[in-house]
Amino acid sequence: MKNKAEDTETERPLKKIEELGNEIVRDIKLGNNPKFVTTVRSRSNIIFDPKKGYLALGSSKEERNFINVAQSKRFMQTVAVAAKCHKFVQEGLHTTIRGLFYQLKFSLGEDVDENIFSEQSESNPLIEDIEVALDVKREGLNLNANRKGVLAGNMRIIDTFGNEKIEIDCSKQGRSGWAIPSDVDNDIEFVDIKAKYVLVVEKDALWQRLNEDLFWKKENAILMTPQGQAARGTRRLIRKLADRGLPIYIFTDSDAWGWYIYWTIKTGSINLAYMGSDVATPEARFLGVTMSDLDNYEFLNKMTIKASEVDLKRAQEMLNYEWIKRHADWEAELQRMIKSKIKLEQDALQGPRLTFVGDYVREKIKNKKYLS
Amino acid sequence: MKNKAEDTETERPLKKIEELGNEIVRDIKLGNNPKFVTTVRSRSNIIFDPKKGYLALGSSKEERNFINVAQSKRFMQTVAVAAKCHKFVQEGLHTTIRGLFYQLKFSLGEDVDENIFSEQSESNPLIEDIEVALDVKREGLNLNANRKGVLAGNMRIIDTFGNEKIEIDCSKQGRSGWAIPSDVDNDIEFVDIKAKYVLVVEKDALWQRLNEDLFWKKENAILMTPQGQAARGTRRLIRKLADRGLPIYIFTDSDAWGWYIYWTIKTGSINLAYMGSDVATPEARFLGVTMSDLDNYEFLNKMTIKASEVDLKRAQEMLNYEWIKRHADWEAELQRMIKSKIKLEQDALQGPRLTFVGDYVREKIKNKKYLS
Repeated sequence: MKNKAEDTETERPLKKIEELGNEIVRDIKLGNNPKFVTTVRSRSNIIFDPKKGYLALGSSKEERNFINVAQSKRFMQTVAVAAKCHKFVQEGLHTTIRGLFYQLKFSLGEDVDENIFSEQSESNPLIEDIEVALDVKREGLNLNANRKGVLAGNMRIIDTFGNEKIEIDCSKQGRSGWAIPSDVDNDIEFVDIKAKYVLVVEKDALWQRLNEDLFWKKENAILMTPQGQAARGTRRLIRKLADRGLPIYIFTDSDAWGWYIYWTIKTGSINLAYMGSDVATPEARFLGVTMSDLDNYEFLNKMTIKASEVDLKRAQEMLNYEWIKRHADWEAELQRMIKSKIKLEQDALQGPRLTFVGDYVREKIKNKKYLS
Repeated sequence: MKNKAEDTETERPLKKIEELGNEIVRDIKLGNNPKFVTTVRSRSNIIFDPKKGYLALGSSKEERNFINVAQSKRFMQTVAVAAKCHKFVQEGLHTTIRGLFYQLKFSLGEDVDENIFSEQSESNPLIEDIEVALDVKREGLNLNANRKGVLAGNMRIIDTFGNEKIEIDCSKQGRSGWAIPSDVDNDIEFVDIKAKYVLVVEKDALWQRLNEDLFWKKENAILMTPQGQAARGTRRLIRKLADRGLPIYIFTDSDAWGWYIYWTIKTGSINLAYMGSDVATPEARFLGVTMSDLDNYEFLNKMTIKASEVDLKRAQEMLNYEWIKRHADWEAELQRMIKSKIKLEQDALQGPRLTFVGDYVREKIKNKKYLS
């Protein structure tokens, strides 16, 4: 059922893990100290490149050796994790990092009866080590991440699932929308993308509002919500849609949490810096709600909320972020909140009438009223 | 596009609100003190009837009068909320309780310029007052609640949405599943239910595991996950499927949170006691994971986790709940956790092999190994 490109996608992780194993066996046979090399993921090695516009890892490497009292347990654990993932990919079955942990607790392999994992906090960083060292995403290792987010719009999905090619028309999902999965790379295709842009709405409540108005149909857009902070799968999908040339507009509250959602989609995050450009969309634009909306929409002045200490502290911090302080429009926004100590929710746009939300978005896009 | 039954469903809330308004006008014309009567929702009026098996409100009533210094503001607010909901239903547009709050802040009506709402905590309880007083669910007042949960299985959905009848085949949703909406009562039908039972799986991760194994197809079941605590829409859907005669099996962790999820689905909750039988499924059975699984599945003894203080405290409390202490099987479970101070996660069933989860569920159902 799979086409060639997909086959390669499945075989690559297998090959990469096998290469790692073969190297270790070779070292043992040659009497060398087996080693595992990965890129350092601590803050000291996370870099923001203004030209690229996203957070990524630098070049610092870290080596783990088997014959080293301080490192041998971790070395063994890394090999055990790689072996389990190899098995999952071979079986064609998926689990989570929790499921992987329980498999490691159950048994390390056919003739190993040692329990070298007592907490999941031991196996989690090793998965990231392997992702980075082998240049394979955990989705390719058949490990599902948490998923969240839905979308509607003029696009079809071909999901190769249970030996069937299942077609999903994202314009025929009614009130529910299509639930964005954890893995949007393997055995799944996005076809017939007729939509002209992507609107990412922070809150599911506002997504439902716009979906009911058939906003995506009238505007020929893909209407998406990450349902709060965007999960790995949703961030990856936004990147993939941007790669197809679709403009990405982000629509959140004007508060610390909303800004965080925007900047995570745009520049990536510290935690996922190791995935670099795969989960960052520097082309994304911030549509609103903005503090400057208060000048253009009189009624919003009745709708403001007191900013919390967290909001104010976060705004102050953002003024110092390398990737934000370069943007004069953002500086003005942040300074305005700090001065006025108020914030605005996207829900407030429903004040005058429920359908005003869509009019607001339309007007913003038409007049290119977005922040960089 | 609507059939007669659905028309009635839309018209009933309108009529109910109009009756309330007419009564108030009548009282004013007659020189009487306008009043609003609803059922008390505080704990003192929440009753568990062992014969019915769910939490519901008792008969205590509470009256709010317009000409009463302590009550007149709240009376006005109640009327304002009812008027807004009437408008939403008339327009055929939905929002959330947050959207309602912003509409109330914007304006109370054509010629009222008073701002009588400053916090959403003022409008929220009034919505429940109206739901109870008029015997109309908030979904019928076009107020969406938070939604969460997905399902797959041999069933079709006809969602009347955007003047179209959209058909969704729940056996053709691939890795994603169908996202359960907030409102499963109005303008939506569940047809061709060929599945023989419903399996409700606490965690989305385990749902994905079973979905990948096509468990729902092999067993002819509806495979559902509430993704943690069940939202209003999911609880309501479980009730509706039980009404069609489908057995409901609940599969959660063996810990305080898992038990809470089960008992909430089964008996309802304090917060939604006012919805009584509409969101409770006393027929539901608890499949696992149980403490007694430790006797029947040797490997699980390697997989236990230390119970938290919260787990132990909650187990102790549950022993005193009227609706639990009547069940000897549950008493044994709770006592065993309190004594051994350990708990078990459903994820642990993936230890021996990823597909063991499905085998476990099958065996439990086949041998009727569930708790009441």
